[in-house]
Amino acid sequence: MMDFPLTLRTMFERAEKFFPKKEIVSRTMSGLFRYTYADYARRTRRLSSALESLGVQRGDRVATFAWNDHRHLEAYFAIPCMGAVLHTVNIRLSPDHISYIVNHAQDRVMLVDETLVPLLEKVQDQLTTVQAYIIMTDKPELPPTTLQPAYSYEQLIASAEETYSYPDDLDEKSLAGMCYTSATTGKPKGVTYTHRGVYLHSITLGLADTTAVSEYDTLLPIVPMFHVNAWGMPFVGVWFGSKQVLPGPMPTPQILLELIQQEKVTISAGVPTVWLGVLKALEEGQYDVSSLRAVLCGGSAAPRGLIEAYETKHGIQFLHAYGMTEASPIALVSRLKSTQKDLSQQDRLDIRSKQGLLVPGLEMRIVGQDGEVNWDGQEMGEIWLRGPWIAHEYYEDERSSDSFVDGWFHTGDVAVVDEEGVVKLVDRTKDLVKSGGEWISSVDLENALMAHPAVFEACVTGIPHAKWDERPLAFVVLKEAYKDKVEKQELLSSLQDQFAKWWIPDDVVLLNEIPKTSVGKFLKRALREEYQEYYL
Amino acid sequence: MMDFPLTLRTMFERAEKFFPKKEIVSRTMSGLFRYTYADYARRTRRLSSALESLGVQRGDRVATFAWNDHRHLEAYFAIPCMGAVLHTVNIRLSPDHISYIVNHAQDRVMLVDETLVPLLEKVQDQLTTVQAYIIMTDKPELPPTTLQPAYSYEQLIASAEETYSYPDDLDEKSLAGMCYTSATTGKPKGVTYTHRGVYLHSITLGLADTTAVSEYDTLLPIVPMFHVNAWGMPFVGVWFGSKQVLPGPMPTPQILLELIQQEKVTISAGVPTVWLGVLKALEEGQYDVSSLRAVLCGGSAAPRGLIEAYETKHGIQFLHAYGMTEASPIALVSRLKSTQKDLSQQDRLDIRSKQGLLVPGLEMRIVGQDGEVNWDGQEMGEIWLRGPWIAHEYYEDERSSDSFVDGWFHTGDVAVVDEEGVVKLVDRTKDLVKSGGEWISSVDLENALMAHPAVFEACVTGIPHAKWDERPLAFVVLKEAYKDKVEKQELLSSLQDQFAKWWIPDDVVLLNEIPKTSVGKFLKRALREEYQEYYL
Repeated sequence: MMDFPLTLRTMFERAEKFFPKKEIVSRTMSGLFRYTYADYARRTRRLSSALESLGVQRGDRVATFAWNDHRHLEAYFAIPCMGAVLHTVNIRLSPDHISYIVNHAQDRVMLVDETLVPLLEKVQDQLTTVQAYIIMTDKPELPPTTLQPAYSYEQLIASAEETYSYPDDLDEKSLAGMCYTSATTGKPKGVTYTHRGVYLHSITLGLADTTAVSEYDTLLPIVPMFHVNAWGMPFVGVWFGSKQVLPGPMPTPQILLELIQQEKVTISAGVPTVWLGVLKALEEGQYDVSSLRAVLCGGSAAPRGLIEAYETKHGIQFLHAYGMTEASPIALVSRLKSTQKDLSQQDRLDIRSKQGLLVPGLEMRIVGQDGEVNWDGQEMGEIWLRGPWIAHEYYEDERSSDSFVDGWFHTGDVAVVDEEGVVKLVDRTKDLVKSGGEWISSVDLENALMAHPAVFEACVTGIPHAKWDERPLAFVVLKEAYKDKVEKQELLSSLQDQFAKWWIPDDVVLLNEIPKTSVGKFLKRALREEYQEYYL
Repeated sequence: MMDFPLTLRTMFERAEKFFPKKEIVSRTMSGLFRYTYADYARRTRRLSSALESLGVQRGDRVATFAWNDHRHLEAYFAIPCMGAVLHTVNIRLSPDHISYIVNHAQDRVMLVDETLVPLLEKVQDQLTTVQAYIIMTDKPELPPTTLQPAYSYEQLIASAEETYSYPDDLDEKSLAGMCYTSATTGKPKGVTYTHRGVYLHSITLGLADTTAVSEYDTLLPIVPMFHVNAWGMPFVGVWFGSKQVLPGPMPTPQILLELIQQEKVTISAGVPTVWLGVLKALEEGQYDVSSLRAVLCGGSAAPRGLIEAYETKHGIQFLHAYGMTEASPIALVSRLKSTQKDLSQQDRLDIRSKQGLLVPGLEMRIVGQDGEVNWDGQEMGEIWLRGPWIAHEYYEDERSSDSFVDGWFHTGDVAVVDEEGVVKLVDRTKDLVKSGGEWISSVDLENALMAHPAVFEACVTGIPHAKWDERPLAFVVLKEAYKDKVEKQELLSSLQDQFAKWWIPDDVVLLNEIPKTSVGKFLKRALREEYQEYYL
């Protein structure tokens, strides 16, 4: 076979050549912007040419600090296709963490959304490697900024070459991108993505057995493009020539539903809290979402009630998935096997609520204290992964050796696996509650609480206890209609039939909101710290 | 990303671990054999163990000489997963060519179907490298044979290790298989397949935008497993855990239809002549083929009438595809773009009759005398391909330099491409008729003739002519019901509205059968030789 590298150039040029008329719709500060892949490709080549003029060379890091919009999508291919490295910076990180990762990655140029300029101005004095800021704005002129030197994206690309030619000799193992993931303690950890990894991860999203993304789809990536490449949706979307709808800055559930209705979105991707919010808005409003064939949900476990609502009430396939920054991110997708499709609705929902089956191309072990666990749905073990789109280290980080051992990535997630190979997440290794020497799954308790009709969100964590070392404590946000109308005891009682007595939390704390990480996951660490004296 | 090789082991072990209960159905000399992937995996590991006992090492060639059945499928993974090379020998080659390719590939062991033993006995004295013959038979004892030394497949694997462990350090660029393709003149040419190539080609077959093979499918590969790996169907079938139905020795259209009906086949693959035969039997008999979602058709261009019959009369998607041994084989698949789906039925059929769109992952040029042709549906040029599952040479063959030039494979096929990028095959470079200095497409004329209700098969070739250098001559097989009832002139008249006058063949020769190659393509060379004096 030819020694033909798997790179983003091949993906990009397919859209350019075969799907020039297909559309990209982008929500910006000035409204909906709409153009074709032909325009997209010309502007992407111009951006590469402009970056080259600014001195960007192969291997250089170019950062983005941006929402999901068309300019960000241009950067997604312009930077890697020219041989540079796309570093998507999470805009929700603390100033300290932002300056740490920009310096750690040695970003040379930063592309910044106009609305996010103030965030970056705060940390600019700490940035030691950035030589140019490119401001992405719909306005013709450069907005006032203290960032120096600053350029206008539109002015730069207007004077650049639209026939800029991409190299066809890039090594597939050269870096295409990087993304930092927040750590439990300490600074964020960097994960680098190779062209080969992005290519193989993207093609996997097109499989009928995973998410079946195709040219016929209209994609709406709600998960931020600064968060694990929006789960790879923009990459596969361009490759296959799918219509893409990019929801721009701070999309509300209402805005998302309007986009779905108006642009006839067929598949969208977001975390459970997004889908909770969209569900609420969907049931309060009048939207036609009949075009939507599936929603992809990952980032944290989705409550069973959420899956049921989408599938049963609204007829929308809810693709529960599991992954992480280190896995590009897709590792498991919860689809029924053909042999399971005739089970009862409840049995099917039981399976669909789990994290699902390993996608083709990866390998997995679930490892307990005595080696690989039995596939009995009972024995708990840590999920280990390996494969061509799994990271092999944290970028220049001593913590790598904790997670990458003998060719396997130790995810830190605890799971059980049933005899069909369907994986069910039990907890993070660090979030498991250890009560009297036995393990209690905080995730199982959370899901059970969230199935209660009065509960909007629930979070369970282990709190120090004099006798049992740790005991679970539940934190619950009630739905508006149920506030002040539901007793803690009722919530705890609802768990009695499902769990052993010693699993049931000793108490419930009612909150107005559960603190979350920058990517919408429950910030259990903050709760544990605040309530560490609660049982003592 | 991890330096994780793309090999067949990962594919095989996924079926073994996740789909042990799924079925493989195999038609053998003693009837239908049925077992599960769990059984399949155990027997496959045993076969590797047995081959190792016979001295097979990494890189050694192991040949198969067999129909599409379960033992052949075991060999498909047992040989490459242990690091040896699966050489599928075309049983329909001449004795001279069989001994040539076995010696040229340096096959060390040959696996032979019992029914094919006599064919091999004829050439055994010419085979210089084979050290052992393994006879694949349903009977317990070894059948009498002059092949020496000969072993019984079943006896060998019965005493081998079912826990044989596959190496996880195989280089993805090491050879997994090889297949020889017949040449216009001279000996067959060898094409080698790497693990990486097989992996990437297989995953491409799972894309929603190509053939969408999934675990839900039941595959019936009719195209022989000795012909370009049955187009990769057995590989992707195992990987995804799809049920597979292997039609065994000499399946008739009736046998195929019975298998489709009984096993609820969802997708099948074969050449146009197979689908012509199946269509005839389908319309003469009573079969329930409602499970069939698609037939994949390649090898040569399918007549429009055939596509229309399957799609319109029988509601079966007819996936017209284009490829070749050197391309593993899939290069183009004729699916409508989303922007074409609302065209009229006739317009859609026009597009579907073409060879279609380049599959994701490959790159293509259509090159005429003045470089790349315009995408106008008019300019003719040769199809060039490159990509990770395209061959880079013929195995140890001086003819390589004719076809592999500067990183591109020159297919020898002439095509036009329209503004949407849809490719339409015009001819083989060597089959184009050159009349008075102008090119005439034999394929276009054949398709038009085959659209005539009286015509079963038609073939057109250029025959030497005193004035015009060459003129087209048509060869037609009439359907039974029309024999002796249709005049040549009526057939030629039917072409008048579709072609310029000078394109229309000067005459028609009515035949009872058109000679075909070992893989069912028209043997134009034989007709040209026999009729070379026809116009002189």
